[in-house]
Amino acid sequence: MKKGIRSRKHRNHFHRRNAPGSSPGTLMIDPQAPRPKIKVTAYSPESKIEDAVPDVESIRGYLSKWPVVWINVEGLGDAETIRKLGQLFDLHRLALEDVINVHQRPKVEIYKSYYFIVVRMADLRDRLETQQLSIFLGKNYVLTFQETESNRFDPIRARIHDKGGRIRQSGADYLAYAILDSCIDNYFPALEKYGEQIETLEDKVILRPGNQFVSEIHEMKRDLLILRRAVWPLREAVNSLIREPSQLITDETRIYIRDCYDHTIQVIDLLENYRDIAGDLIEVYLSSISNRMNEIMKILTIFTTIFIPLTFIAGVYGMNFKNMPELNWKYGYLFALGIMAALAAVMLIYFRKKGWLGASSRLGTF
Amino acid sequence: MKKGIRSRKHRNHFHRRNAPGSSPGTLMIDPQAPRPKIKVTAYSPESKIEDAVPDVESIRGYLSKWPVVWINVEGLGDAETIRKLGQLFDLHRLALEDVINVHQRPKVEIYKSYYFIVVRMADLRDRLETQQLSIFLGKNYVLTFQETESNRFDPIRARIHDKGGRIRQSGADYLAYAILDSCIDNYFPALEKYGEQIETLEDKVILRPGNQFVSEIHEMKRDLLILRRAVWPLREAVNSLIREPSQLITDETRIYIRDCYDHTIQVIDLLENYRDIAGDLIEVYLSSISNRMNEIMKILTIFTTIFIPLTFIAGVYGMNFKNMPELNWKYGYLFALGIMAALAAVMLIYFRKKGWLGASSRLGTF
Amino acid sequence: MKKGIRSRKHRNHFHRRNAPGSSPGTLMIDPQAPRPKIKVTAYSPESKIEDAVPDVESIRGYLSKWPVVWINVEGLGDAETIRKLGQLFDLHRLALEDVINVHQRPKVEIYKSYYFIVVRMADLRDRLETQQLSIFLGKNYVLTFQETESNRFDPIRARIHDKGGRIRQSGADYLAYAILDSCIDNYFPALEKYGEQIETLEDKVILRPGNQFVSEIHEMKRDLLILRRAVWPLREAVNSLIREPSQLITDETRIYIRDCYDHTIQVIDLLENYRDIAGDLIEVYLSSISNRMNEIMKILTIFTTIFIPLTFIAGVYGMNFKNMPELNWKYGYLFALGIMAALAAVMLIYFRKKGWLGASSRLGTF
Amino acid sequence: MKKGIRSRKHRNHFHRRNAPGSSPGTLMIDPQAPRPKIKVTAYSPESKIEDAVPDVESIRGYLSKWPVVWINVEGLGDAETIRKLGQLFDLHRLALEDVINVHQRPKVEIYKSYYFIVVRMADLRDRLETQQLSIFLGKNYVLTFQETESNRFDPIRARIHDKGGRIRQSGADYLAYAILDSCIDNYFPALEKYGEQIETLEDKVILRPGNQFVSEIHEMKRDLLILRRAVWPLREAVNSLIREPSQLITDETRIYIRDCYDHTIQVIDLLENYRDIAGDLIEVYLSSISNRMNEIMKILTIFTTIFIPLTFIAGVYGMNFKNMPELNWKYGYLFALGIMAALAAVMLIYFRKKGWLGASSRLGTF
Amino acid sequence: MKKGIRSRKHRNHFHRRNAPGSSPGTLMIDPQAPRPKIKVTAYSPESKIEDAVPDVESIRGYLSKWPVVWINVEGLGDAETIRKLGQLFDLHRLALEDVINVHQRPKVEIYKSYYFIVVRMADLRDRLETQQLSIFLGKNYVLTFQETESNRFDPIRARIHDKGGRIRQSGADYLAYAILDSCIDNYFPALEKYGEQIETLEDKVILRPGNQFVSEIHEMKRDLLILRRAVWPLREAVNSLIREPSQLITDETRIYIRDCYDHTIQVIDLLENYRDIAGDLIEVYLSSISNRMNEIMKILTIFTTIFIPLTFIAGVYGMNFKNMPELNWKYGYLFALGIMAALAAVMLIYFRKKGWLGASSRLGTF
Repeated sequence: MKKGIRSRKHRNHFHRRNAPGSSPGTLMIDPQAPRPKIKVTAYSPESKIEDAVPDVESIRGYLSKWPVVWINVEGLGDAETIRKLGQLFDLHRLALEDVINVHQRPKVEIYKSYYFIVVRMADLRDRLETQQLSIFLGKNYVLTFQETESNRFDPIRARIHDKGGRIRQSGADYLAYAILDSCIDNYFPALEKYGEQIETLEDKVILRPGNQFVSEIHEMKRDLLILRRAVWPLREAVNSLIREPSQLITDETRIYIRDCYDHTIQVIDLLENYRDIAGDLIEVYLSSISNRMNEIMKILTIFTTIFIPLTFIAGVYGMNFKNMPELNWKYGYLFALGIMAALAAVMLIYFRKKGWLGASSRLGTF
Repeated sequence: MKKGIRSRKHRNHFHRRNAPGSSPGTLMIDPQAPRPKIKVTAYSPESKIEDAVPDVESIRGYLSKWPVVWINVEGLGDAETIRKLGQLFDLHRLALEDVINVHQRPKVEIYKSYYFIVVRMADLRDRLETQQLSIFLGKNYVLTFQETESNRFDPIRARIHDKGGRIRQSGADYLAYAILDSCIDNYFPALEKYGEQIETLEDKVILRPGNQFVSEIHEMKRDLLILRRAVWPLREAVNSLIREPSQLITDETRIYIRDCYDHTIQVIDLLENYRDIAGDLIEVYLSSISNRMNEIMKILTIFTTIFIPLTFIAGVYGMNFKNMPELNWKYGYLFALGIMAALAAVMLIYFRKKGWLGASSRLGTF
Repeated sequence: MKKGIRSRKHRNHFHRRNAPGSSPGTLMIDPQAPRPKIKVTAYSPESKIEDAVPDVESIRGYLSKWPVVWINVEGLGDAETIRKLGQLFDLHRLALEDVINVHQRPKVEIYKSYYFIVVRMADLRDRLETQQLSIFLGKNYVLTFQETESNRFDPIRARIHDKGGRIRQSGADYLAYAILDSCIDNYFPALEKYGEQIETLEDKVILRPGNQFVSEIHEMKRDLLILRRAVWPLREAVNSLIREPSQLITDETRIYIRDCYDHTIQVIDLLENYRDIAGDLIEVYLSSISNRMNEIMKILTIFTTIFIPLTFIAGVYGMNFKNMPELNWKYGYLFALGIMAALAAVMLIYFRKKGWLGASSRLGTF
Repeated sequence: MKKGIRSRKHRNHFHRRNAPGSSPGTLMIDPQAPRPKIKVTAYSPESKIEDAVPDVESIRGYLSKWPVVWINVEGLGDAETIRKLGQLFDLHRLALEDVINVHQRPKVEIYKSYYFIVVRMADLRDRLETQQLSIFLGKNYVLTFQETESNRFDPIRARIHDKGGRIRQSGADYLAYAILDSCIDNYFPALEKYGEQIETLEDKVILRPGNQFVSEIHEMKRDLLILRRAVWPLREAVNSLIREPSQLITDETRIYIRDCYDHTIQVIDLLENYRDIAGDLIEVYLSSISNRMNEIMKILTIFTTIFIPLTFIAGVYGMNFKNMPELNWKYGYLFALGIMAALAAVMLIYFRKKGWLGASSRLGTF
Repeated sequence: MKKGIRSRKHRNHFHRRNAPGSSPGTLMIDPQAPRPKIKVTAYSPESKIEDAVPDVESIRGYLSKWPVVWINVEGLGDAETIRKLGQLFDLHRLALEDVINVHQRPKVEIYKSYYFIVVRMADLRDRLETQQLSIFLGKNYVLTFQETESNRFDPIRARIHDKGGRIRQSGADYLAYAILDSCIDNYFPALEKYGEQIETLEDKVILRPGNQFVSEIHEMKRDLLILRRAVWPLREAVNSLIREPSQLITDETRIYIRDCYDHTIQVIDLLENYRDIAGDLIEVYLSSISNRMNEIMKILTIFTTIFIPLTFIAGVYGMNFKNMPELNWKYGYLFALGIMAALAAVMLIYFRKKGWLGASSRLGTF
């Protein structure tokens, strides 16, 4: 079952639905994708409204009335809806294609009248997955596409609800920033989980190394690779939002995006940190295993090298030769036992001198 | 047999046919290369034509009549044909030499009246191979050279066939883009295969490590290296198509090539991902082997250390000394067996305390 | 207990207190943070004053009277105080948020009327921790925030006390430099400690490799990673202080900051050096372990291969067959012992030829 | 003997003949270097001449008469000759010193009236060595210095001989290009050899790992490092020939040098490829060794754990106690044998369940 | 004793004498540093003078009379002398501090009227150490500070002595170049030593791997790291001497410094080369050890698996059962010996088939 989950995820991660050679901009819908639900949130400093909208056409009304309109689409299972939204906002067909092919790298593409921003959101359930969030930022609207329904942006809606908040005083660019910032901040809990997992593994790997840890470490490294692919390009993307001159983003908002950039760097920092530590863990594991093996070998060697000569002596006096004078000695038996004891003592002293017996006892307190 | 295939491929990968010191631009034909077949596809928004052309001269007619002419040459086995094509389109002799020496890195070279683009196409049969595709993009023509006949570009021909399609409305630059894009998209199925192979190996390497996996992993890493050499330079090449100002490529097409660039980055991303994971796999394998060895050593040590002292005692009482009082005790035999049982019990308790027996039973469920 | 310390520290290192999606610039106080104590140090070339200040308002007086005012806040446990300071100096809310979220990377942010500098200070008690120091440098003031009370800056206060000192002759920019420089110089003792630890480990790992060293090395590498995260970004930050043209920093002070930059590079150099050596140590450890195992195996093999054939011979003459002529030979016993001695001698010569016995004796002097 | 060869080569690789502190530009001749032989090849589109020249002065005549003069010096064993050449062409003393100290990295130095180009030529005899080729390119001459006599440039002389060839139509810059290109192309056969060696090693290392492969791989990696040092700087050097504006090189020749640059990149590509694969080979070797050891340990463990208990039982019934009831049973012997058989069967079943016996038989077909 | 030396050196390598927070530019003298000796060498094309100078003041006379004055200070044990020199030449206090804190990285700092150049000189006695050389280059003087007395610069003095030499014809910049060049050339003998050590280790590690090599390799790698820290920054420093426009350095001297830069690159090249090879050596060592262990295990396994079954059979016929028919057979003894011989033969054939015996005999010639 676990296998199944992993396979599915992996395949997801690079399956492009359009066949090689097919026309670019083709909107090929994943048959399993949920049908889109459209939510419109429109606000001005004075007032705000939040509606579920049945069809694309009815959005037009909001756009003409409100200074900032946020259209949030959850689910990508209907090409028609997405095409209509593309027409309504005059979006490029390649951008629309990227909305639907949900395996894009994070990026910022600058079109004449809008920005197209792609972010990956960490989704930490059983195993790590990342979902694509596509953001179109125009003069007075923000259009977001999520793969599935979620309550991820409820805190932002709450801030819009709060009349005195800065978000209500600002334009669409600030809203886009808020959404972006919330996505980036969502990486911190995911990283926190990996931080804890690493600590647990660190303790376990040294105390009782076992094969299951190797696969745990390996899976964690793979997950961190997935996160890495999701976050590294984000850095460049967010940076281009700060640098590119544009009328869509005010200078004040740029300062906020700079903060966002800082957070991205922090995420990357932690990520690389964990990757380094996880990389070390395998080495630590191998060292622990080697050390264990060493201890086992010592025990085996101590036992074998002590008893093998003794057994040999016993064997000698178990021979059935007619003429073996010792056998008839009065204290022959004691003599034999004495030789054995002496041999054993010599061996033990030798091993103690080599520090093996000490090591072996240290092993007990291990 | 397998050896033979590999050797051949490898040698192919760096054998340059021209001897060092020979004149540049010499068209030295590989004697095993198939003879060229020329196909011309010409189209305007209103109409289109597709012909197999017997000789180079007859191409001239198409060039004067149609706004976009695509000349596709399959097979590089005839220097004469290629030289004539070079004269017809006024191509540089060094570019022609690169067409024939099919081990070029992907690149874009900008000549005055045309672009020379080299791409490597992934060819996933038994083992991975890459073939060279050479593209000349001029004002109103696209000239492509493939190493062998193939139906790789049938989807593009289908799109040309479709009268309403964007490709029919656009110029030669868009056609070149479509060809390039189809080549890049062809890497995804190849990568998909490696993704699956990695997953299979991940499971197997941990469950039952064996030497055959090492060579499988090693071969996969080598294949990924080949892919890497084919894709990394592509990034820079495609980027130069976007950046270089030129009248051959329209701004609209540049947006499409930017999409192409995105796909190249995605391919590189996945590739590096797989390389990282494959690199880890060897470590995982070594850890599994070490762990196995550890378990084997434990079993050996448990058996040996328990039985060796017992055997020694049996040996002692097998000695033939005249004067061994225990031998004549009534319950001497039971006494000896008792000592043995006690010794064995002590050892077992010791090993249980060290957790070896538990580990050993865990081993059973491994 | 040690576990607890480590866990806490780690968690600290990435716990962001603001929930994802919450408004930026929210001053969310860590409930365990100590309440702020404000100390004001103001000076001119002629005179100086040093006061503990009860509330923020009373700072205003110093600012109007003195050419350089240093406000040092120790403890971040009161949002109100920090907000008031922000209003007094007209600081950006994002900068204030960064003051309180004490897990920032070192950075320099340039605002219109002030610089915002974040540094991490090494704190070497039981285990390495880094604390955040936030510096605001304005026209005539330096405002610093520390996480906890400390006497770290006493040497600087002593230099301010010294009337003839350069610091008294200079402006706020020189004071900020002095604070920054003292933070960077504080890394040297921390590194010194790691240098000594590495030397100790180097000796121990080779002489008597044990599992505890693996975790020691691993912890040290992790600590060095923490230091690295604290120092690397500092380089860029300090460099931006040198490069950015600004009226807040005089050319003369820039020369001093260049010196500061040099020290940062030295810290980074040493750090990378130690990281390289520590990385090697694991390899050295593994080699030592392997070598030990080799010696153990040799001993085991020598003993076993010598005694097993002898024991076999003893076993043969211990058989109870009726018709075993040797048993009745007069010197049968001596004959058997002779064969055994001969066999043992052959084995010993063989091992000496292979150099094992020499190696084994060398092992004694090991 | 082999040792001697290697040592010599190595020492060569960094021995600088001038003592530290000695005056720069000192022409310190290697006493073992062969005496220089000067060959002059002069040509115009219409005619050509090729002479061995006894002394430097007689070159002057060629320079005044022919549009392109190639002076090729083979052997660096006479300071006087080289100094005179330096005077004749007005070469900088540091350049001349570099000609004689034949351990320069490839580089291009641009002087006012000439280019000074240093290339390393791969020399693949028993072991890899690289020789230095120094090229001076002036307005109408090319002056080349080789360490020893060779027929390396015969193909170029043949091309000069060919009246219709491009080389005869072009200037000195094209000749310099031809020489450079021939040097770079000479790396391909060397790489081909390493490619084949890697393939051989790949097969052998997995099938029958032995210690000799480790040193073979190690030597190959070292050779590849030597090649690397010879080729990497070449890339930058050739690139500077393309980029630097100069009247000595025509635009047409620049296109040819661009081709040369492509070849350099191809060489680097292959080189890095082989280095990666060779790096993997050590890992593969270690895995194979570990796997072998595992199999050996299994066999040892199977044998020991089966026979040790049996031998113990035999030992018990070999004891000489008076009162051992089983000894007098009628079928006591059979009873003992039965127990032994049962025990052995149990062990075998256990090992079969663990898959060891299967593995062991698989081992046979290994 | 060896320990002591190492510790001292290490500590040296990062001990900064000024406490964190102390005033910059404080001249804190190392109490163990030797007292400074000042030597003045002044020259013009026509004449030259060389004097030991008792105090700083008397230098003033030379400066006014001679076109080039070289003041060489050996020993840094007196703050007063250094401070006076600073006043005489108007040197920045931070530069003077760097002269005394002899753990600077190589660097070039450009002040208005002079250059401040720091280089590290390799000092190859028992173990590698680097000493700091501080150079001030002014209009008509070169001021150098060495840590201890040395005859390192005698060759340069000899060149000054030589009336016709270039150094006498040139200015202070050429003298500074000559000093710098001599420092860089001094790295070659140090590298030569490591090159030889590596070769020796390569042979030894494969032939008879022992633990002492691990620490030898480890120490060598650490030494190479020290060299690396001394040389890498030199590259950038020397490069800045070439690039920075300045009236202190003539164009002609720049060409010489370019040569110096080339040598630096060569040193770096060799260094990285040796680091790569040394890094490989540990792997080679581990492989050799693994291989040895494998051979030992084979011998152990062959012996054990052959003799254990034989001993078992002997044990069986040593049992004391009344009713053991074989014991009474006439040829029972021969029968038993026959079975044993057959078993041994079977085992030997099995091992020969597995190639172990061949391997074992190969082992003898190892």
